[in-house]
Amino acid sequence: MNESLEALIKLMAERKTDIYIVPTADYHGSEYVGEYFQIREYLTGFSGSAGTLVVVKEEAYLFTDGRYHLQAERELNGSGIILMKSGLPGVPSVADFVVDCAQSGAVIGFDGRCISAKFYDSLVDKSEKAGKRLTFVTDEDLASRVWTSRPELKSRNVYELRIKNAGSTREEKIAALCSELRSRNIEYFVVTALDETAWLLNIRGADVLCNPVLLSFLVVSASSERVTIYLNRSNEYNVSFFTDLEINTRDYDDIYSVLSEQLEGRSVLIDNRTANCRIKESLKKSVLTEDISPIYLKKAVKNAAECSGERIAHIKDGVAMVRFLYWLKKSVGREKITEISAAEKLLALRREQEGFLDESFPAIMAYADNAAIIHYQANQDTNRELENKGLILMDTGAHYDTGTTDITRTVALGPLSDEEKKAFTVVLAAHLRLINAVFLEGTGGRELDMLARSVLWRHGLEYRHGTGHGVGHILNVHEGPNTISVYRSVNNRELDIIREGMVTSCEPGYYKDGEYGIRHENLTLCKRGVENEYGQFLYFENLTMVPFDIEAVDKKYLSSEDIKYLNDYHRTVYERISPYLEGDELEFLKSCTREILP
Amino acid sequence: MNESLEALIKLMAERKTDIYIVPTADYHGSEYVGEYFQIREYLTGFSGSAGTLVVVKEEAYLFTDGRYHLQAERELNGSGIILMKSGLPGVPSVADFVVDCAQSGAVIGFDGRCISAKFYDSLVDKSEKAGKRLTFVTDEDLASRVWTSRPELKSRNVYELRIKNAGSTREEKIAALCSELRSRNIEYFVVTALDETAWLLNIRGADVLCNPVLLSFLVVSASSERVTIYLNRSNEYNVSFFTDLEINTRDYDDIYSVLSEQLEGRSVLIDNRTANCRIKESLKKSVLTEDISPIYLKKAVKNAAECSGERIAHIKDGVAMVRFLYWLKKSVGREKITEISAAEKLLALRREQEGFLDESFPAIMAYADNAAIIHYQANQDTNRELENKGLILMDTGAHYDTGTTDITRTVALGPLSDEEKKAFTVVLAAHLRLINAVFLEGTGGRELDMLARSVLWRHGLEYRHGTGHGVGHILNVHEGPNTISVYRSVNNRELDIIREGMVTSCEPGYYKDGEYGIRHENLTLCKRGVENEYGQFLYFENLTMVPFDIEAVDKKYLSSEDIKYLNDYHRTVYERISPYLEGDELEFLKSCTREILP
Repeated sequence: MNESLEALIKLMAERKTDIYIVPTADYHGSEYVGEYFQIREYLTGFSGSAGTLVVVKEEAYLFTDGRYHLQAERELNGSGIILMKSGLPGVPSVADFVVDCAQSGAVIGFDGRCISAKFYDSLVDKSEKAGKRLTFVTDEDLASRVWTSRPELKSRNVYELRIKNAGSTREEKIAALCSELRSRNIEYFVVTALDETAWLLNIRGADVLCNPVLLSFLVVSASSERVTIYLNRSNEYNVSFFTDLEINTRDYDDIYSVLSEQLEGRSVLIDNRTANCRIKESLKKSVLTEDISPIYLKKAVKNAAECSGERIAHIKDGVAMVRFLYWLKKSVGREKITEISAAEKLLALRREQEGFLDESFPAIMAYADNAAIIHYQANQDTNRELENKGLILMDTGAHYDTGTTDITRTVALGPLSDEEKKAFTVVLAAHLRLINAVFLEGTGGRELDMLARSVLWRHGLEYRHGTGHGVGHILNVHEGPNTISVYRSVNNRELDIIREGMVTSCEPGYYKDGEYGIRHENLTLCKRGVENEYGQFLYFENLTMVPFDIEAVDKKYLSSEDIKYLNDYHRTVYERISPYLEGDELEFLKSCTREILP
Repeated sequence: MNESLEALIKLMAERKTDIYIVPTADYHGSEYVGEYFQIREYLTGFSGSAGTLVVVKEEAYLFTDGRYHLQAERELNGSGIILMKSGLPGVPSVADFVVDCAQSGAVIGFDGRCISAKFYDSLVDKSEKAGKRLTFVTDEDLASRVWTSRPELKSRNVYELRIKNAGSTREEKIAALCSELRSRNIEYFVVTALDETAWLLNIRGADVLCNPVLLSFLVVSASSERVTIYLNRSNEYNVSFFTDLEINTRDYDDIYSVLSEQLEGRSVLIDNRTANCRIKESLKKSVLTEDISPIYLKKAVKNAAECSGERIAHIKDGVAMVRFLYWLKKSVGREKITEISAAEKLLALRREQEGFLDESFPAIMAYADNAAIIHYQANQDTNRELENKGLILMDTGAHYDTGTTDITRTVALGPLSDEEKKAFTVVLAAHLRLINAVFLEGTGGRELDMLARSVLWRHGLEYRHGTGHGVGHILNVHEGPNTISVYRSVNNRELDIIREGMVTSCEPGYYKDGEYGIRHENLTLCKRGVENEYGQFLYFENLTMVPFDIEAVDKKYLSSEDIKYLNDYHRTVYERISPYLEGDELEFLKSCTREILP
């Protein structure tokens, strides 16, 4: 094992800690975490964006989901760390595993700021059910002690979203939120999800890789309709920024003591998915309601200004993508291009678009067998040179000043095998059937998923990820509640409903280990269609405007209906994107969007 | 209001009963009920198979579901009874309505033998939540007093299923059941669902219209693995039948006193969906477990003998149906045929098949606008003469000595409008896409439904019923847990899973009020397909072997894939059915199953 992990094991022994848990998490349950929080990667060497390290005495286990099984296998090889492939039959959940490993009387430690209240409650609950008396030490930040080179926790400057892009003022949003809180007899709401604070205040930050959010907590008082923000006050710009907005500021770490001292006996709401375990402990003497944040659904349902901003952003992104695809197809095999240099080229072309802000997530540029690793990130060791054969999978996205994009295109760089063409086309048919769905209001993402997934199932194929996720407006590229997935838990039916105004990806895929990977992803906006005696029908408007590679299509796997859908889409892409191109690039677009016959 | 209802209202006033509830139910929560139990129809004149009458002081309300809205409207017209269309927005559930109507202190009466324990609990629960003190009189059988001409409660002779058709002996089934009960520390199980008793004992009866079951309760002792049957002992044949099988018999009505006297302090299981409220009350002093019956799922998963018996029954039924369709198409417009006479003709042709036992439900033979009434039953008032134009919907089925069928065919009797052809074809595409689905083990009926329903939704069409239901083996034509429906409650995910061995219908439809109705229904057997690294794939084997009417198809609403599915199915139908036909009937089958080109 590496030195850092050995140091942790030694420290655990000194402190009589039997089990230590290191999730991949900041203090807010964010999906991506800043470098200050990347202790799990530091300890294990596994660089995926999700995973939990559990150290049991002298054994180390890494849990990660299906997206990362291959990558983790490779990166953990020789580390002495045991890989636990979450989601496969027989692999326990982290909580079940911890409780199962622990003997009665065991001491279990973790940094409670990095563990959600919900997860902690499940640990306590499971240990009680198992009849084990366990001691949980929730303020055991061993990471800080073994991670000698830990970077500083910095906060970058925030800025205010223009009202024409936000569509609703901060005051309007806060007033609506407080009215809802009062109707539920809640006096205070502790906002712990970073994107919820950004959305509510119409601000954006830069504290998390690709997620334009500010590390902070926000306490909303329902009666006064005033908010207090807890943030790193060493950034004086931010302090004066909020002071100018007449928003009170406090130190980031003060949140725990303020909650416990000032909210005793008060009625307080937290969302236990993003509230950390220490936040909940600080509210022990409050009248606590744990529920889904009321901002969660409001934020996901985009208003008219957000919707039209998304359309504009997707036109810009489409122009950059088409120019990139033209360059890629023309240059591959003629000049040296690697996964990393291709990603740089695409980023450069996106930067040329007015209003470009940042990538919305680290680009996945995966050639040939690398694409079978679902969330592959090229690095110097794995970076491959592109050849004029086979498939490249490119899952990338950007924030613009009016909206956020997330697109995957898989394209042929040269000849393909029949099997590759079949898989490419089956996934394309799956994509087209879902994205062209019309559905009655009230339909869940769980059911909609079948329209895509069943197309693969007919051929005995499958992909181990959801088919769609919500996307924030100049915020996190993954947001809830909207999800299109049969693999989602059925616990909260209301949150599974796909609603008008939601932006959701449509991205079925197929991955053949060691050979290739395919994914076709567009973003969609859910809109109202026909209303009649059966109710209100909804449909998906395509936001993404980039052709699919018809050179990789084997028409025998498309029905006549699929071909019609594809031609209709390509006609729209040409209409929207062609005004911004000329010369060879325009000819390329024309060729890519040409009608195909059954 | 009619005299019987007025007599009931008068009696309620005498007995100071503010609200009286009359469900459509026997003592076992059966879907169809014998004539002894048809008090709701007697009181209201509404002849549908489902509905609940609620009398509040002097007002009478009839609740019924979407299948019966049109029929109830017609039959209740002028009755003074207010129709409550369950399932439509704003229409409360019966329990909510009763609690809402009741003032604190009100007396609510019903015959507790006809009310499920589950429904009664929900009434009590809702009244507590509403803060109302209500008095429930659970043994108020006013029906017997107002229904002067009530028929006698008779029990018909039972018979034993041959082992080669049952596939498993009574002893094996009882032993497996008792072993499961013991593992759950349950001493006694009171079997209340009639088809569960029939399945467990490998017996069939004739006490309920079209359902070959015996009116009885069964008490299973887990330790002794012995059973006692409570039945109408005035039928001496049945008493000696069970005595010969070494099964104890007791009087039908003794069940309540025996349970309360002999099972005090014992651990007892009931299924509160089919156990009536009096059964539960009789077990007040027992240690009661209320759960889904362990027989429920076992019965739905057919064994090899049951599966091969179903295939044989469906060949016979297919032969009868094809001969009927030949006769119908040839004769319509040339001789007088009505809905009722057509149903008689089909029944006569089925009777010619060896092993025919009975219809599996009352035939729905619905011409033109009558077909828009989803569960239409022709009677002398509504019976229509068939003309050589438009569509006829025929939903019929039979029990044979090896299995049970349920089929709907909608056929053109002459020229159709473009709209009729479009609707016919869209519903056919929906049917074909679902029935040709391949799906991973663990997939629920809720998700599968989307494959059919979404095809209609694309055209702004919809049908207000599920797409599929389970079918018993020479038992009830509707059985659970298998259902294919997005409208199903999501409460019990496990029971929504479609499993290998389940027989399930596939029957999307479309109904245009006042004009026509379309439904295409086959029965399917769920089978194991490919198993690979993604898991076990399942698919539907078509049991039903009868052509769809290709003369009603408008090909522009079928994709190339749909056409392939249809041709494949018709080829199989021809192979299986043609050996049993000759002459003109064989030529007719050949023509009906001819290949159509895209």
